[in-house]
Amino acid sequence: MAGGQELKLLGLWASPFVLRSRIALNLKGVGYEFLEEVPGTKSELLLRSNPVYKKMPVLIHNGKPICESMIIVQYIDGVWDAAGPSILPSDPYDRAIARFWAVYIDDKWFPSLIKIIKAKADDEETAEAREQVIAGLQLLEEAFEKCSKGKDFFGGESVGYLDIAFGCYWGWLKAGEKMAGIKLLDEEKTPLLMGWAERFCSADAVKELMPEVDQLVEFGNMIRARQNAAAAN
Amino acid sequence: MAGGQELKLLGLWASPFVLRSRIALNLKGVGYEFLEEVPGTKSELLLRSNPVYKKMPVLIHNGKPICESMIIVQYIDGVWDAAGPSILPSDPYDRAIARFWAVYIDDKWFPSLIKIIKAKADDEETAEAREQVIAGLQLLEEAFEKCSKGKDFFGGESVGYLDIAFGCYWGWLKAGEKMAGIKLLDEEKTPLLMGWAERFCSADAVKELMPEVDQLVEFGNMIRARQNAAAAN
Repeated sequence: MAGGQELKLLGLWASPFVLRSRIALNLKGVGYEFLEEVPGTKSELLLRSNPVYKKMPVLIHNGKPICESMIIVQYIDGVWDAAGPSILPSDPYDRAIARFWAVYIDDKWFPSLIKIIKAKADDEETAEAREQVIAGLQLLEEAFEKCSKGKDFFGGESVGYLDIAFGCYWGWLKAGEKMAGIKLLDEEKTPLLMGWAERFCSADAVKELMPEVDQLVEFGNMIRARQNAAAAN
Repeated sequence: MAGGQELKLLGLWASPFVLRSRIALNLKGVGYEFLEEVPGTKSELLLRSNPVYKKMPVLIHNGKPICESMIIVQYIDGVWDAAGPSILPSDPYDRAIARFWAVYIDDKWFPSLIKIIKAKADDEETAEAREQVIAGLQLLEEAFEKCSKGKDFFGGESVGYLDIAFGCYWGWLKAGEKMAGIKLLDEEKTPLLMGWAERFCSADAVKELMPEVDQLVEFGNMIRARQNAAAAN
């Protein structure tokens, strides 16, 4: 708990969105109670705290719920602004660019990765999604060059907003490769991203939280099997 | 122009997204050059400034482009932070709630309104969209009660982030009613929203920018006719 404050996070270890909140809290050195949801069910507290979307993560701070992963990250940055480095860039233009790419990643890039993770066969739709994921990585390689300004992270010297937004998907990107048996990452095409991902995954605030790729594959296969069984019934 | 700075906005009078940027600039009392796009085409400058989405609005500040309407609003709030009232609430929790509803409006509510605006017939899909728009208005009525805390706007005393996010659609909401010949607004069910909309549309920073409903209907019919003609070819 943070100095007399009650802080709870509702989530699941495998969720990239939950990972975002956890990394942000780690960056600020803020303690919290992690209330793990059971896969395939939704707790009473989750349903009550996020009635509009019924989705995790939900951060509950002194009884008040905050929903939507990148909104939670900004909330954490705002409340604990003096603790740890700023998560959002301080310059308004850099902030706008970080927000732009974070929205791109969620709205355009990740939906293609999800198609690969959920794919039942190596069909035309999967091939198209693969091209889109790879094209997105190319755009993000260029964005890294501009945002990082030669430093280690999108956010410069330390892990910031866009690092969190994109980095939370890295494990699932590698899991997607394994699950679909295809190659998405290419050291030659996106060398900057490959270096960045290594630094990101081994950063102090991140390393204990990053799920093992094999665990994600196992989790992904379990969810897929459950969905297929539900669809067959 | 703002004190020696070059500020251009690429957009179109009928676009709710462009309206957001213009209201934010008005709130801060910032002058700018409005470069009007031609409906159905995209200018060279637009394509070059927003290569990822190729969409308006784009704000170009001293040669640097900023894209995505609510990111632009936050940029304007950040750069001209001392000019005019703060657009985002100052309290981190209020800020998170304003962001939450702004995302809800764009991701969940407006897509249903668009279906009504684009509807060719009073079919099942239109009926479903109508229910969704009305249910969303009910949620926003409740959100207004909580956010405004008895004051005039979602943002309290003055027009703020969520007022801009939602208010920009008000003209299109009324145009949608006319175009589809259905009723979406109900004074008895959402009395707070009706009062809010009147204050919002007549606020200093907004009133000259709000398009007439009949003009939007005409514009909507023109776009619809063009799309139907393109589909027939």
